[in-house]
Amino acid sequence: MAAWSSSPSLRHLLLLRPRVPLGPTCLAGSFSRRHVHSHSRRRLFSSASSSTLTHGDEASTHVDADGVVDVNPPRGTRDFPPEDMRLRTWLFDQFREVSRLMTFEEVDFPVLESEALFIRKAGEEITQQLYNFEDKGGRRVVLRPEITPSLARLVIKQGKSVSLPLKWFTIGQCWRYERMTRGRRREHYQWNMDIFGVPKVRAEAELLQAIVLLFQRLGITSSDVGIRVSSRKVLQAVLNMYSIPEHLFTEVCVIVDKLGKLTREEIEKELMSTGLSSEAVQGIIEVLSLKSLSKLEEVLGSGVEAVADLKKLFSFAEQYGYADWICFDASVVRGLAYYTGIVFEAFDREGKLRAICGGGRYDRLLSTFGSEDIPACGFGFGDAVIVELLKEKGLLPDMSRQIDDIVFPLDEELEGPASSIASSLRKKGRAVDLVEDKRLKWVFKHAERINASRLILVGNSEWERGMVRVKILSTREEFEVKAGDLE
Amino acid sequence: MAAWSSSPSLRHLLLLRPRVPLGPTCLAGSFSRRHVHSHSRRRLFSSASSSTLTHGDEASTHVDADGVVDVNPPRGTRDFPPEDMRLRTWLFDQFREVSRLMTFEEVDFPVLESEALFIRKAGEEITQQLYNFEDKGGRRVVLRPEITPSLARLVIKQGKSVSLPLKWFTIGQCWRYERMTRGRRREHYQWNMDIFGVPKVRAEAELLQAIVLLFQRLGITSSDVGIRVSSRKVLQAVLNMYSIPEHLFTEVCVIVDKLGKLTREEIEKELMSTGLSSEAVQGIIEVLSLKSLSKLEEVLGSGVEAVADLKKLFSFAEQYGYADWICFDASVVRGLAYYTGIVFEAFDREGKLRAICGGGRYDRLLSTFGSEDIPACGFGFGDAVIVELLKEKGLLPDMSRQIDDIVFPLDEELEGPASSIASSLRKKGRAVDLVEDKRLKWVFKHAERINASRLILVGNSEWERGMVRVKILSTREEFEVKAGDLE
Repeated sequence: MAAWSSSPSLRHLLLLRPRVPLGPTCLAGSFSRRHVHSHSRRRLFSSASSSTLTHGDEASTHVDADGVVDVNPPRGTRDFPPEDMRLRTWLFDQFREVSRLMTFEEVDFPVLESEALFIRKAGEEITQQLYNFEDKGGRRVVLRPEITPSLARLVIKQGKSVSLPLKWFTIGQCWRYERMTRGRRREHYQWNMDIFGVPKVRAEAELLQAIVLLFQRLGITSSDVGIRVSSRKVLQAVLNMYSIPEHLFTEVCVIVDKLGKLTREEIEKELMSTGLSSEAVQGIIEVLSLKSLSKLEEVLGSGVEAVADLKKLFSFAEQYGYADWICFDASVVRGLAYYTGIVFEAFDREGKLRAICGGGRYDRLLSTFGSEDIPACGFGFGDAVIVELLKEKGLLPDMSRQIDDIVFPLDEELEGPASSIASSLRKKGRAVDLVEDKRLKWVFKHAERINASRLILVGNSEWERGMVRVKILSTREEFEVKAGDLE
Repeated sequence: MAAWSSSPSLRHLLLLRPRVPLGPTCLAGSFSRRHVHSHSRRRLFSSASSSTLTHGDEASTHVDADGVVDVNPPRGTRDFPPEDMRLRTWLFDQFREVSRLMTFEEVDFPVLESEALFIRKAGEEITQQLYNFEDKGGRRVVLRPEITPSLARLVIKQGKSVSLPLKWFTIGQCWRYERMTRGRRREHYQWNMDIFGVPKVRAEAELLQAIVLLFQRLGITSSDVGIRVSSRKVLQAVLNMYSIPEHLFTEVCVIVDKLGKLTREEIEKELMSTGLSSEAVQGIIEVLSLKSLSKLEEVLGSGVEAVADLKKLFSFAEQYGYADWICFDASVVRGLAYYTGIVFEAFDREGKLRAICGGGRYDRLLSTFGSEDIPACGFGFGDAVIVELLKEKGLLPDMSRQIDDIVFPLDEELEGPASSIASSLRKKGRAVDLVEDKRLKWVFKHAERINASRLILVGNSEWERGMVRVKILSTREEFEVKAGDLE
């Protein structure tokens, strides 16, 4: 093995057999996207915790003077070796199963999109860190930072050919580019569920059930995790109280989302700079500190939509049976410009991690693309924070390999019969590893390592009689069987 | 709906309900990559056959003067609306199931890789059409055109932490960029299976079984499809016969792979220009026309490795039981520079389509990255040609949706009970669509469209007694049941 840089060799040391189970760490990185913004800028996209995760070596090049290629993937990206891939597949399977229970249909989009789809002027972090470039045809393209705009694009494209409501989900990789940072993740995978065509909070109630069903499948309880819920209409009502012009709404939302990342003074300063009176700024900040719906009703009055929507949603929560998972928190605004109504985010109750997922209603996104609006809401659920949480709670499942049979010819002359046996077992649906040119001791170790159920030894003395030797590895039971009778 | 360009409106016309099943066409595009080169340059990456497939409108921009965003994905890329996604998922499931039977482990890599990994000098088409660019940090990166180099990179990175042989598979999107062409696909998905650490043709025999198992699962027979097999060692032997220097080997392979795309005269000219004698050129071309192993043995002698390898592989094919699927054809060379031994490609026997998949042995790839070599072989199997073939043979499965229950409250007041019922059925594992604000007639149509098994009507008169009305949609049987007893 050539000497690349110091990190791979370190990894080799770490990975001396028996393998250190590195899997979990590899998904539990730190990329928070779309609705998954954090309350602490520092912790958002924090450094990856393992060299498996990302390639944070500033000095590394991708081919050195001797023509030696860097073995790491591009900076901030991940490989998925088998153990990490098994974890990812397991997690995605959970996403898919919940989507199936909720009868959402899977869709997908190119990871490469037109930059125009993501150009927004509200100062969102997501649009400031676009992984964008010009293709050889002079088109501005981007490795998508989030999936919602693609979903909206496809809804418009499908047009009248589909009947509303649409319930779609997708699992895809999202990208961002930060110029200045070291060792941070530039990609993550995100599960999105979106409903188009339902104006009522029924849609949000359905999305929240999906999130809760997922947590429950993963073994997470409502004492581990909660979902903070508010509505951008709360802020809208405050803006109305102070007669603040409509066009400032989005900007104000993006600013107040930084509460917790910036100091209160910084937020106030940013709000003032948009032209708001200090009275309005104080009013906004006061309302955002509210944690009870009845208090909110007192302040805004019961006639406002924000209060009615939230009350309805909390009553749905009772009926669905997930009321203990959700709580009202007026400080939740979410960082994306296009939200218009209910917004929510899931958080760990210990407060150690960034938001686990987030979402909300975006009834006016389609018109920003020049189309007629369709009421819509959805959420994004990344692959990073949830794995950190599962790890912390000891909820990661056993990710070891498992196969049915190992077929091992004890003599090279028996490679023919071994081929036939392996082939015929596979045709019967069994997962068969055909091993050759190894010592029996290695084969036994191998069988243990990959959790084989049976070992099928093809030896001369048995084969002369058309038989093979079978060993059941869990019970150490051994017997002879006619090759043709193997099931 | 705003007026985008003419094509979306046309699509709307085409898609008036009942939906035209567009699914199949969407995967059956035309992107042939890695080992999947064609014998006809014209047919390689030929124009997409449907507007769903690709966005071939030269004049389109991604945002027009009124700020209207183009609803199409970037040129040459695909969206996967639900019906296309179901087909893709089904196909990938088949790939995964065969990989499981063969006990290959799934791995994955970033779609973005360092350009250095793909820089080769043999004049391959694949390296001439890189979707490459410079990132904001000045790094040369590429949307990968094939996956083998990433696999090799990860094998080197894992180093001594893994025990050989490694059997890995991956399913991923690959990209290419052609400047001059219109409406051709720039991305496709590819299933790769690779074995590292097995020098013998046993590895190739295993790969071929995987391919045959896949065909069999799809309902394809050996009269529909064959697999042409040869070895680059055949060409090596001819080169040795004429004392042609070693360093010309790769270049000669890449040139003769164009047989069928270029005329024989053009090939001869290209070969001559590398410095080969016209005698050697004739010798090469003669050997490449051989279609029988015994003839090959006559020409090259039985001592050469090429003959021994091929004979061994054909004898394995007998033992595995797939001999009727494969045939020797010396003209198969494959277009990738790094192949060193056995090469193969699957083709439709009617000869209408490009290669379905292709692969071979690449024992010396790792040293081109500056590492110690490990014997390896693998194949790439794209998502395009196979779907074309399945469509042609009428083998595409029924791709309609299927859900368990529709819950429909007949009165808005009953949204609460409907929520509880839907929620509790989902917790029991049933896929439940909760429908509101529709007329009963719509609900029945909807139930038919999405193949619901049951319709659960929540009506006032039943609910007063704690009951709901259940309709089994296949039998039209109807009955009342206690809400709590629903299973």
